[in-house]
Amino acid sequence: MEAKAARADIRLYVVAPLAVGEALRLDERQSHYLLRVMRLAPGDTVGLFNGRDGEWLARIEDTARGGCTLTPIERIAAQVTEGGPWLAFAPLKKDALDVLIEKATELGVGRLIPVLTQRTQGSRVNIGRLSAQAIEAAEQCGRLTVPTVDEPMALARLGEKWPAERRLLLLDETGEGRPLADVLRDWPVDARDAGFVCGPEGGFAPEELDGLGKLPFAVRVGLGPRILRAETAALSALACWQAWRGDWRDDPAARTGRR
Amino acid sequence: MEAKAARADIRLYVVAPLAVGEALRLDERQSHYLLRVMRLAPGDTVGLFNGRDGEWLARIEDTARGGCTLTPIERIAAQVTEGGPWLAFAPLKKDALDVLIEKATELGVGRLIPVLTQRTQGSRVNIGRLSAQAIEAAEQCGRLTVPTVDEPMALARLGEKWPAERRLLLLDETGEGRPLADVLRDWPVDARDAGFVCGPEGGFAPEELDGLGKLPFAVRVGLGPRILRAETAALSALACWQAWRGDWRDDPAARTGRR
Repeated sequence: MEAKAARADIRLYVVAPLAVGEALRLDERQSHYLLRVMRLAPGDTVGLFNGRDGEWLARIEDTARGGCTLTPIERIAAQVTEGGPWLAFAPLKKDALDVLIEKATELGVGRLIPVLTQRTQGSRVNIGRLSAQAIEAAEQCGRLTVPTVDEPMALARLGEKWPAERRLLLLDETGEGRPLADVLRDWPVDARDAGFVCGPEGGFAPEELDGLGKLPFAVRVGLGPRILRAETAALSALACWQAWRGDWRDDPAARTGRR
Repeated sequence: MEAKAARADIRLYVVAPLAVGEALRLDERQSHYLLRVMRLAPGDTVGLFNGRDGEWLARIEDTARGGCTLTPIERIAAQVTEGGPWLAFAPLKKDALDVLIEKATELGVGRLIPVLTQRTQGSRVNIGRLSAQAIEAAEQCGRLTVPTVDEPMALARLGEKWPAERRLLLLDETGEGRPLADVLRDWPVDARDAGFVCGPEGGFAPEELDGLGKLPFAVRVGLGPRILRAETAALSALACWQAWRGDWRDDPAARTGRR
Protein backbone atom coordinates (compact mmCIF):
# COMPACT_ATOMS: atom_id res chain seq x y z
CA MET A 1 0.00 0.00 0.00
CA GLU A 2 1.33 3.36 -0.91
CA ALA A 3 1.82 5.95 1.77
CA LYS A 4 -0.80 8.69 1.55
CA ALA A 5 1.27 11.36 3.20
CA ALA A 6 4.33 12.83 1.57
CA ARG A 7 7.18 13.72 3.86
CA ALA A 8 6.30 17.26 4.61
CA ASP A 9 2.54 17.09 4.34
CA ILE A 10 1.72 15.96 7.85
CA ARG A 11 4.12 16.61 10.70
CA LEU A 12 3.61 16.10 14.40
CA TYR A 13 5.57 17.27 17.38
CA VAL A 14 6.02 14.57 20.02
CA VAL A 15 7.80 14.49 23.37
CA ALA A 16 9.09 10.90 23.12
CA PRO A 17 12.60 10.06 21.85
CA LEU A 18 12.81 9.24 18.15
CA ALA A 19 15.01 6.35 17.00
CA VAL A 20 14.70 3.51 14.49
CA GLY A 21 12.16 0.96 15.54
CA GLU A 22 11.27 2.61 18.84
CA ALA A 23 7.50 2.46 18.67
CA LEU A 24 5.55 5.30 20.20
CA ARG A 25 1.89 5.79 20.94
CA LEU A 26 0.25 9.13 20.24
CA ASP A 27 -2.07 10.80 22.69
CA GLU A 28 -5.80 10.92 22.06
CA ARG A 29 -5.78 14.32 20.35
CA GLN A 30 -3.02 13.46 17.90
CA SER A 31 -4.47 10.00 17.23
CA HIS A 32 -7.83 11.56 16.46
CA TYR A 33 -6.18 14.04 14.11
CA LEU A 34 -4.33 11.38 12.10
CA LEU A 35 -7.06 8.76 11.97
CA ARG A 36 -10.30 10.75 11.93
CA VAL A 37 -9.39 14.15 10.51
CA MET A 38 -6.66 13.13 8.03
CA ARG A 39 -8.11 9.61 7.60
CA LEU A 40 -4.74 7.87 7.64
CA ALA A 41 -4.47 4.12 8.18
CA PRO A 42 -1.81 1.51 9.06
CA GLY A 43 1.03 1.71 6.54
CA ASP A 44 0.71 5.46 6.01
CA THR A 45 3.63 7.64 7.00
CA VAL A 46 3.94 11.01 8.71
CA GLY A 47 6.79 13.19 9.89
CA LEU A 48 7.67 13.34 13.59
CA PHE A 49 10.01 15.72 15.42
CA ASN A 50 10.70 16.37 19.08
CA GLY A 51 13.17 19.25 19.04
CA ARG A 52 16.13 16.94 19.81
CA ASP A 53 16.37 14.04 17.36
CA GLY A 54 15.72 15.65 13.99
CA GLU A 55 12.74 14.81 11.83
CA TRP A 56 11.72 11.21 11.23
CA LEU A 57 9.48 9.50 8.78
CA ALA A 58 7.28 7.22 10.86
CA ARG A 59 4.82 4.56 9.82
CA ILE A 60 1.44 3.97 11.40
CA GLU A 61 1.53 0.40 12.75
CA ASP A 62 -1.54 -0.01 14.87
CA THR A 63 -4.81 1.84 15.32
CA ALA A 64 -6.65 -0.39 17.75
CA ARG A 65 -9.25 1.33 19.96
CA GLY A 66 -8.70 4.72 18.27
CA GLY A 67 -5.10 5.01 19.51
CA CYS A 68 -2.30 5.41 17.02
CA THR A 69 1.04 3.63 17.35
CA LEU A 70 3.88 4.58 15.00
CA THR A 71 7.41 3.36 14.34
CA PRO A 72 10.13 5.76 13.16
CA ILE A 73 11.67 4.25 10.01
CA GLU A 74 14.08 6.84 8.66
CA ARG A 75 15.55 10.13 9.78
CA ILE A 76 14.79 12.66 7.04
CA ALA A 77 16.36 15.75 8.63
CA ALA A 78 19.16 16.16 11.12
CA GLN A 79 18.41 18.23 14.20
CA VAL A 80 19.59 21.82 13.90
CA THR A 81 19.75 24.55 16.50
CA GLU A 82 17.05 27.06 15.73
CA GLY A 83 17.98 29.79 18.17
CA GLY A 84 15.73 32.46 16.81
CA PRO A 85 14.99 35.86 18.28
CA TRP A 86 13.06 36.17 21.52
CA LEU A 87 9.77 38.00 21.78
CA ALA A 88 8.47 39.53 24.99
CA PHE A 89 4.89 40.67 24.60
CA ALA A 90 2.04 41.97 26.69
CA PRO A 91 -0.93 39.58 26.48
CA LEU A 92 -3.49 40.79 23.96
CA LYS A 93 -7.12 40.05 23.25
CA LYS A 94 -7.74 36.48 22.11
CA ASP A 95 -7.78 36.94 18.33
CA ALA A 96 -4.75 39.20 18.31
CA LEU A 97 -2.84 36.85 20.61
CA ASP A 98 -3.67 33.88 18.38
CA VAL A 99 -2.26 35.74 15.38
CA LEU A 100 0.81 36.77 17.37
CA ILE A 101 1.70 33.26 18.55
CA GLU A 102 1.04 31.54 15.24
CA LYS A 103 2.95 34.00 13.10
CA ALA A 104 5.81 34.57 15.54
CA THR A 105 6.35 30.80 15.39
CA GLU A 106 6.30 30.84 11.60
CA LEU A 107 8.79 33.67 11.73
CA GLY A 108 11.17 31.52 13.75
CA VAL A 109 10.86 32.99 17.23
CA GLY A 110 12.90 31.04 19.78
CA ARG A 111 11.24 32.09 23.00
CA LEU A 112 7.94 33.71 23.85
CA ILE A 113 7.84 35.72 27.06
CA PRO A 114 4.51 37.14 28.30
CA VAL A 115 5.09 40.34 30.25
CA LEU A 116 2.54 42.14 32.37
CA THR A 117 2.54 45.89 31.87
CA GLN A 118 0.58 48.71 33.44
CA ARG A 119 -1.95 48.79 30.63
CA THR A 120 -2.16 45.03 30.05
CA GLN A 121 -5.79 43.96 29.91
CA GLY A 122 -6.16 41.16 32.46
CA SER A 123 -3.25 39.27 33.91
CA ARG A 124 -4.30 35.70 33.22
CA VAL A 125 -2.34 34.02 30.49
CA ASN A 126 -3.10 30.45 29.54
CA ILE A 127 0.40 29.12 28.95
CA GLY A 128 -0.89 25.69 27.94
CA ARG A 129 -3.02 27.19 25.23
CA LEU A 130 -0.18 29.38 23.91
CA SER A 131 2.15 26.36 23.84
CA ALA A 132 -0.39 24.28 21.94
CA GLN A 133 -0.75 27.03 19.35
CA ALA A 134 3.00 27.37 19.01
CA ILE A 135 3.33 23.60 18.53
CA GLU A 136 0.64 23.54 15.85
CA ALA A 137 2.29 26.40 13.99
CA ALA A 138 5.70 24.71 14.28
CA GLU A 139 4.26 21.49 12.84
CA GLN A 140 2.80 23.35 9.87
CA CYS A 141 5.73 25.61 9.02
CA GLY A 142 8.38 22.88 8.99
CA ARG A 143 10.38 23.84 12.08
CA LEU A 144 12.39 21.22 13.96
CA THR A 145 11.86 22.91 17.31
CA VAL A 146 8.98 24.61 19.07
CA PRO A 147 9.39 27.97 20.78
CA THR A 148 9.65 28.01 24.55
CA VAL A 149 6.74 29.75 26.28
CA ASP A 150 7.69 31.33 29.60
CA GLU A 151 5.50 31.92 32.61
CA PRO A 152 4.28 35.54 32.62
CA MET A 153 6.49 38.02 34.44
CA ALA A 154 6.20 41.66 35.40
CA LEU A 155 7.77 43.98 32.85
CA ALA A 156 10.25 45.29 35.45
CA ARG A 157 11.57 41.76 35.91
CA LEU A 158 12.32 41.44 32.20
CA GLY A 159 15.26 43.81 32.39
CA GLU A 160 16.64 42.05 35.46
CA LYS A 161 16.50 38.62 33.89
CA TRP A 162 17.50 39.55 30.34
CA PRO A 163 21.00 38.33 29.32
CA ALA A 164 23.25 41.33 28.70
CA GLU A 165 24.74 39.90 25.51
CA ARG A 166 21.34 39.72 23.80
CA ARG A 167 20.23 43.06 22.43
CA LEU A 168 16.69 44.03 23.30
CA LEU A 169 14.82 46.06 20.71
CA LEU A 170 11.94 48.02 22.18
CA LEU A 171 9.11 48.50 19.72
CA ASP A 172 8.50 52.13 20.53
CA GLU A 173 5.18 53.45 19.31
CA THR A 174 5.96 57.06 20.32
CA GLY A 175 7.91 57.78 17.15
CA GLU A 176 11.06 58.50 19.19
CA GLY A 177 12.81 55.25 18.28
CA ARG A 178 15.49 54.87 15.63
CA PRO A 179 14.22 53.40 12.31
CA LEU A 180 14.43 49.62 12.50
CA ALA A 181 16.28 49.32 9.19
CA ASP A 182 19.03 51.62 10.45
CA VAL A 183 19.40 49.62 13.66
CA LEU A 184 19.66 46.36 11.71
CA ARG A 185 22.05 47.84 9.16
CA ASP A 186 24.41 48.99 11.92
CA TRP A 187 24.07 45.78 13.91
CA PRO A 188 27.43 44.93 15.52
CA VAL A 189 29.19 42.05 13.79
CA ASP A 190 29.73 40.25 17.08
CA ALA A 191 26.15 40.63 18.34
CA ARG A 192 24.26 37.63 17.03
CA ASP A 193 21.29 37.38 19.34
CA ALA A 194 18.29 39.63 19.52
CA GLY A 195 14.99 39.98 21.26
CA PHE A 196 12.02 42.27 20.94
CA VAL A 197 9.52 43.61 23.40
CA CYS A 198 6.14 44.99 22.39
CA GLY A 199 3.53 46.61 24.58
CA PRO A 200 -0.20 46.00 25.06
CA GLU A 201 -3.08 47.45 23.04
CA GLY A 202 -2.78 50.78 24.84
CA GLY A 203 1.00 50.96 24.52
CA PHE A 204 3.64 51.19 27.23
CA ALA A 205 3.26 53.75 29.99
CA PRO A 206 5.88 56.50 29.53
CA GLU A 207 7.81 55.41 32.63
CA GLU A 208 7.88 51.83 31.39
CA LEU A 209 9.41 52.91 28.11
CA ASP A 210 11.90 55.13 29.90
CA GLY A 211 12.89 52.32 32.24
CA LEU A 212 13.38 49.83 29.44
CA GLY A 213 15.22 52.35 27.30
CA LYS A 214 17.84 52.87 30.02
CA LEU A 215 18.87 49.21 30.05
CA PRO A 216 22.39 48.97 28.59
CA PHE A 217 21.40 46.30 26.06
CA ALA A 218 18.21 48.03 24.93
CA VAL A 219 17.56 50.06 21.78
CA ARG A 220 14.34 51.92 21.06
CA VAL A 221 13.26 51.26 17.49
CA GLY A 222 10.58 52.90 15.40
CA LEU A 223 8.29 51.24 12.87
CA GLY A 224 7.20 54.16 10.77
CA PRO A 225 4.52 56.81 10.81
CA ARG A 226 1.39 54.69 11.18
CA ILE A 227 0.02 53.36 14.46
CA LEU A 228 0.53 49.61 14.30
CA ARG A 229 -1.41 47.19 16.42
CA ALA A 230 0.81 45.39 18.93
CA GLU A 231 0.79 42.12 17.02
CA THR A 232 1.47 43.84 13.70
CA ALA A 233 4.46 45.62 15.23
CA ALA A 234 5.86 42.40 16.70
CA LEU A 235 5.47 40.41 13.49
CA SER A 236 6.89 43.20 11.36
CA ALA A 237 9.96 43.43 13.55
CA LEU A 238 10.50 39.65 13.49
CA ALA A 239 10.17 39.57 9.70
CA CYS A 240 12.69 42.39 9.27
CA TRP A 241 15.06 40.67 11.67
CA GLN A 242 14.89 37.36 9.82
CA ALA A 243 15.24 39.06 6.45
CA TRP A 244 18.34 41.02 7.42
CA ARG A 245 20.02 39.31 10.33
CA GLY A 246 18.30 35.98 10.65
CA ASP A 247 17.97 32.89 8.51
CA TRP A 248 16.24 34.27 5.42
CA ARG A 249 19.61 34.84 3.79
CA ASP A 250 21.46 31.83 2.45
CA ASP A 251 24.76 33.50 2.93
CA PRO A 252 25.74 34.07 6.56
CA ALA A 253 28.28 36.66 5.45
CA ALA A 254 25.44 38.85 4.25
CA ARG A 255 24.05 38.83 7.78
CA THR A 256 27.10 39.28 9.91
CA GLY A 257 28.93 41.88 7.85
CA ARG A 258 27.66 45.39 7.41
CA ARG A 259 26.26 45.78 3.98
CA MET B 1 -18.06 71.38 27.76
CA GLU B 2 -14.73 69.79 27.15
CA ALA B 3 -14.23 67.58 24.14
CA LYS B 4 -14.06 63.94 25.11
CA ALA B 5 -12.05 62.83 22.12
CA ALA B 6 -8.48 63.92 21.57
CA ARG B 7 -7.41 64.52 18.02
CA ALA B 8 -6.15 61.09 17.16
CA ASP B 9 -8.38 59.00 19.37
CA ILE B 10 -11.38 58.68 17.11
CA ARG B 11 -11.02 59.08 13.36
CA LEU B 12 -13.57 58.43 10.67
CA TYR B 13 -13.25 58.13 6.93
CA VAL B 14 -15.99 59.96 5.03
CA VAL B 15 -16.73 60.44 1.36
CA ALA B 16 -17.99 64.02 1.59
CA PRO B 17 -15.74 67.04 0.96
CA LEU B 18 -14.18 68.54 4.07
CA ALA B 19 -14.02 72.33 4.45
CA VAL B 20 -14.59 74.83 7.25
CA GLY B 21 -18.23 75.03 8.23
CA GLU B 22 -19.48 72.56 5.62
CA ALA B 23 -21.75 70.44 7.76
CA LEU B 24 -22.00 66.76 6.95
CA ARG B 25 -24.28 64.03 8.15
CA LEU B 26 -22.86 60.61 8.92
CA ASP B 27 -24.53 57.42 7.78
CA GLU B 28 -26.35 55.20 10.23
CA ARG B 29 -23.41 52.94 10.99
CA GLN B 30 -20.99 55.76 11.74
CA SER B 31 -23.61 57.68 13.74
CA HIS B 32 -24.27 54.60 15.82
CA TYR B 33 -20.55 54.14 16.42
CA LEU B 34 -19.99 57.71 17.64
CA LEU B 35 -23.16 58.11 19.69
CA ARG B 36 -23.88 54.63 21.03
CA VAL B 37 -20.52 52.83 21.07
CA MET B 38 -18.20 55.74 21.89
CA ARG B 39 -20.96 57.68 23.70
CA LEU B 40 -20.05 61.05 22.25
CA ALA B 41 -22.43 63.99 22.40
CA PRO B 42 -22.88 67.43 20.81
CA GLY B 43 -19.75 69.53 21.36
CA ASP B 44 -17.38 66.53 21.22
CA THR B 45 -14.82 66.43 18.45
CA VAL B 46 -13.50 63.68 16.20
CA GLY B 47 -11.07 63.50 13.30
CA LEU B 48 -12.38 63.18 9.75
CA PHE B 49 -10.51 62.39 6.53
CA ASN B 50 -11.61 61.60 3.01
CA GLY B 51 -8.36 60.88 1.19
CA ARG B 52 -8.41 64.28 -0.54
CA ASP B 53 -8.72 67.16 1.92
CA GLY B 54 -6.36 66.18 4.75
CA GLU B 55 -7.54 65.47 8.27
CA TRP B 56 -10.03 67.74 10.01
CA LEU B 57 -11.13 68.20 13.55
CA ALA B 58 -14.92 68.18 13.41
CA ARG B 59 -17.49 68.98 16.08
CA ILE B 60 -20.68 67.07 16.65
CA GLU B 61 -23.51 69.59 16.20
CA ASP B 62 -26.69 67.62 16.13
CA THR B 63 -27.75 64.13 17.08
CA ALA B 64 -31.48 64.24 16.45
CA ARG B 65 -33.15 60.92 15.66
CA GLY B 66 -29.89 58.96 16.10
CA GLY B 67 -28.20 60.67 13.17
CA CYS B 68 -24.98 62.58 13.68
CA THR B 69 -24.22 65.90 12.00
CA LEU B 70 -20.73 67.37 12.28
CA THR B 71 -18.98 70.55 11.21
CA PRO B 72 -15.29 70.60 10.30
CA ILE B 73 -13.64 73.30 12.39
CA GLU B 74 -9.91 73.03 11.74
CA ARG B 75 -7.61 71.17 9.41
CA ILE B 76 -5.10 69.32 11.59
CA ALA B 77 -3.12 67.56 8.85
CA ALA B 78 -2.51 68.44 5.23
CA GLN B 79 -3.30 65.78 2.65
CA VAL B 80 -0.27 63.78 1.58
CA THR B 81 0.12 61.27 -1.19
CA GLU B 82 0.41 57.84 0.38
CA GLY B 83 1.34 55.82 -2.67
CA GLY B 84 2.31 52.68 -0.87
CA PRO B 85 3.16 49.31 -2.37
CA TRP B 86 0.49 47.27 -4.13
CA LEU B 87 -0.51 43.83 -2.98
CA ALA B 88 -2.04 41.22 -5.28
CA PHE B 89 -3.30 38.24 -3.31
CA ALA B 90 -5.32 35.10 -3.81
CA PRO B 91 -8.44 35.19 -1.61
CA LEU B 92 -7.94 33.21 1.60
CA LYS B 93 -10.19 31.72 4.22
CA LYS B 94 -12.12 34.32 6.19
CA ASP B 95 -9.89 34.70 9.26
CA ALA B 96 -6.69 34.78 7.25
CA LEU B 97 -8.17 37.29 4.81
CA ASP B 98 -9.29 39.53 7.68
CA VAL B 99 -5.76 39.54 9.05
CA LEU B 100 -4.32 40.21 5.61
CA ILE B 101 -6.54 43.23 4.84
CA GLU B 102 -6.24 44.80 8.29
CA LYS B 103 -2.49 44.48 8.56
CA ALA B 104 -1.70 45.30 4.94
CA THR B 105 -3.59 48.56 5.52
CA GLU B 106 -1.61 49.25 8.70
CA LEU B 107 1.55 48.55 6.72
CA GLY B 108 0.61 51.25 4.23
CA VAL B 109 -0.51 49.24 1.21
CA GLY B 110 -1.79 51.47 -1.59
CA ARG B 111 -3.85 49.03 -3.62
CA LEU B 112 -5.30 45.60 -2.89
CA ILE B 113 -5.83 43.36 -5.91
CA PRO B 114 -7.60 40.01 -5.46
CA VAL B 115 -6.34 37.51 -8.03
CA LEU B 116 -7.89 34.15 -8.81
CA THR B 117 -5.35 31.36 -9.13
CA GLN B 118 -5.66 27.68 -9.96
CA ARG B 119 -5.64 26.65 -6.33
CA THR B 120 -7.75 29.52 -5.01
CA GLN B 121 -10.50 28.17 -2.77
CA GLY B 122 -13.72 29.61 -4.14
CA SER B 123 -13.90 32.54 -6.50
CA ARG B 124 -16.31 34.78 -4.65
CA VAL B 125 -14.73 37.83 -3.10
CA ASN B 126 -16.86 40.32 -1.20
CA ILE B 127 -15.25 43.57 -2.29
CA GLY B 128 -17.57 45.63 -0.11
CA ARG B 129 -16.51 43.74 2.97
CA LEU B 130 -12.81 44.03 2.15
CA SER B 131 -13.21 47.77 1.57
CA ALA B 132 -14.99 48.21 4.89
CA GLN B 133 -12.19 46.39 6.69
CA ALA B 134 -9.55 48.48 4.95
CA ILE B 135 -11.38 51.67 5.91
CA GLU B 136 -11.63 50.63 9.55
CA ALA B 137 -7.93 49.78 9.66
CA ALA B 138 -7.06 53.08 7.98
CA GLU B 139 -9.13 54.97 10.57
CA GLN B 140 -7.32 53.26 13.41
CA CYS B 141 -3.75 53.45 12.14
CA GLY B 142 -3.80 57.15 11.31
CA ARG B 143 -3.63 57.01 7.52
CA LEU B 144 -4.98 59.87 5.44
CA THR B 145 -6.03 57.60 2.60
CA VAL B 146 -7.67 54.21 2.31
CA PRO B 147 -6.27 51.52 0.02
CA THR B 148 -8.06 50.90 -3.26
CA VAL B 149 -9.68 47.46 -3.50
CA ASP B 150 -9.90 46.15 -7.07
CA GLU B 151 -12.43 43.78 -8.54
CA PRO B 152 -10.97 40.25 -8.62
CA MET B 153 -9.10 39.31 -11.78
CA ALA B 154 -7.57 36.14 -13.14
CA LEU B 155 -3.88 35.81 -12.31
CA ALA B 156 -2.96 35.78 -16.01
CA ARG B 157 -4.55 39.23 -16.39
CA LEU B 158 -2.35 40.66 -13.64
CA GLY B 159 0.75 40.54 -15.81
CA GLU B 160 -1.09 42.14 -18.72
CA LYS B 161 -2.43 45.02 -16.67
CA TRP B 162 0.60 45.61 -14.44
CA PRO B 163 2.47 48.87 -15.18
CA ALA B 164 5.97 48.03 -16.42
CA GLU B 165 7.66 50.68 -14.28
CA ARG B 166 6.42 49.11 -11.03
CA ARG B 167 8.48 46.12 -9.98
CA LEU B 168 6.48 43.05 -9.06
CA LEU B 169 7.95 40.86 -6.33
CA LEU B 170 6.63 37.32 -6.42
CA LEU B 171 6.51 35.73 -3.00
CA ASP B 172 7.91 32.39 -4.06
CA GLU B 173 7.37 29.59 -1.58
CA THR B 174 9.49 27.09 -3.54
CA GLY B 175 12.76 28.34 -2.08
CA GLU B 176 14.04 29.30 -5.54
CA GLY B 177 13.57 33.03 -5.06
CA ARG B 178 16.33 35.48 -4.19
CA PRO B 179 16.42 36.50 -0.51
CA LEU B 180 14.17 39.52 -0.02
CA ALA B 181 16.82 41.53 1.83
CA ASP B 182 19.21 41.17 -1.12
CA VAL B 183 16.55 42.29 -3.58
CA LEU B 184 15.74 45.35 -1.46
CA ARG B 185 19.40 46.16 -0.88
CA ASP B 186 20.07 46.15 -4.63
CA TRP B 187 16.90 48.04 -5.46
CA PRO B 188 17.55 50.41 -8.38
CA VAL B 189 17.76 54.04 -7.32
CA ASP B 190 15.26 55.10 -9.98
CA ALA B 191 12.70 52.38 -9.22
CA ARG B 192 10.43 53.82 -6.58
CA ASP B 193 7.30 51.74 -6.87
CA ALA B 194 6.78 48.15 -5.89
CA GLY B 195 4.10 45.55 -5.67
CA PHE B 196 3.86 42.04 -4.30
CA VAL B 197 1.88 39.01 -5.31
CA CYS B 198 1.21 36.11 -2.98
CA GLY B 199 -0.52 32.83 -3.74
CA PRO B 200 -3.37 30.96 -2.09
CA GLU B 201 -3.17 28.50 0.83
CA GLY B 202 -1.91 25.75 -1.49
CA GLY B 203 0.61 27.97 -3.22
CA PHE B 204 0.93 28.87 -6.89
CA ALA B 205 0.80 26.12 -9.49
CA PRO B 206 4.29 25.67 -11.04
CA GLU B 207 3.19 27.06 -14.40
CA GLU B 208 1.69 30.11 -12.70
CA LEU B 209 4.97 30.86 -10.99
CA ASP B 210 6.89 30.30 -14.22
CA GLY B 211 4.55 32.59 -16.11
CA LEU B 212 4.80 35.37 -13.54
CA GLY B 213 8.55 34.95 -13.24
CA LYS B 214 9.01 35.62 -16.96
CA LEU B 215 7.39 39.05 -16.81
CA PRO B 216 10.12 41.64 -17.40
CA PHE B 217 9.25 43.62 -14.26
CA ALA B 218 8.97 40.57 -11.98
CA VAL B 219 11.45 39.22 -9.43
CA ARG B 220 11.03 35.99 -7.52
CA VAL B 221 11.83 36.54 -3.86
CA GLY B 222 12.31 34.07 -1.04
CA LEU B 223 11.26 34.47 2.57
CA GLY B 224 13.46 31.97 4.31
CA PRO B 225 13.45 28.28 5.15
CA ARG B 226 10.08 27.97 6.88
CA ILE B 227 6.75 27.51 5.14
CA LEU B 228 4.87 30.74 5.75
CA ARG B 229 1.12 31.01 5.48
CA ALA B 230 0.07 33.23 2.60
CA GLU B 231 -0.92 36.14 4.83
CA THR B 232 2.26 35.88 6.89
CA ALA B 233 4.34 36.02 3.72
CA ALA B 234 2.46 39.05 2.40
CA LEU B 235 2.70 40.99 5.67
CA SER B 236 6.36 40.13 6.15
CA ALA B 237 7.18 41.37 2.67
CA LEU B 238 5.25 44.62 3.19
CA ALA B 239 7.00 45.23 6.53
CA CYS B 240 10.43 44.68 4.99
CA TRP B 241 9.56 46.96 2.11
CA GLN B 242 8.42 49.78 4.39
CA ALA B 243 11.43 49.33 6.67
CA TRP B 244 13.97 49.51 3.86
CA ARG B 245 12.43 51.28 0.90
CA GLY B 246 9.21 52.73 2.19
CA ASP B 247 8.27 55.34 4.75
CA TRP B 248 9.69 53.85 7.95
CA ARG B 249 12.90 55.79 7.43
CA ASP B 250 12.91 59.48 8.15
CA ASP B 251 15.65 60.10 5.68
CA PRO B 252 14.65 59.51 2.07
CA ALA B 253 18.33 59.26 1.09
CA ALA B 254 18.60 56.11 3.16
CA ARG B 255 15.87 54.58 1.02
CA THR B 256 16.82 55.64 -2.47
CA GLY B 257 20.58 55.13 -2.30
CA ARG B 258 22.18 51.75 -1.94
CA ARG B 259 23.34 51.25 1.56
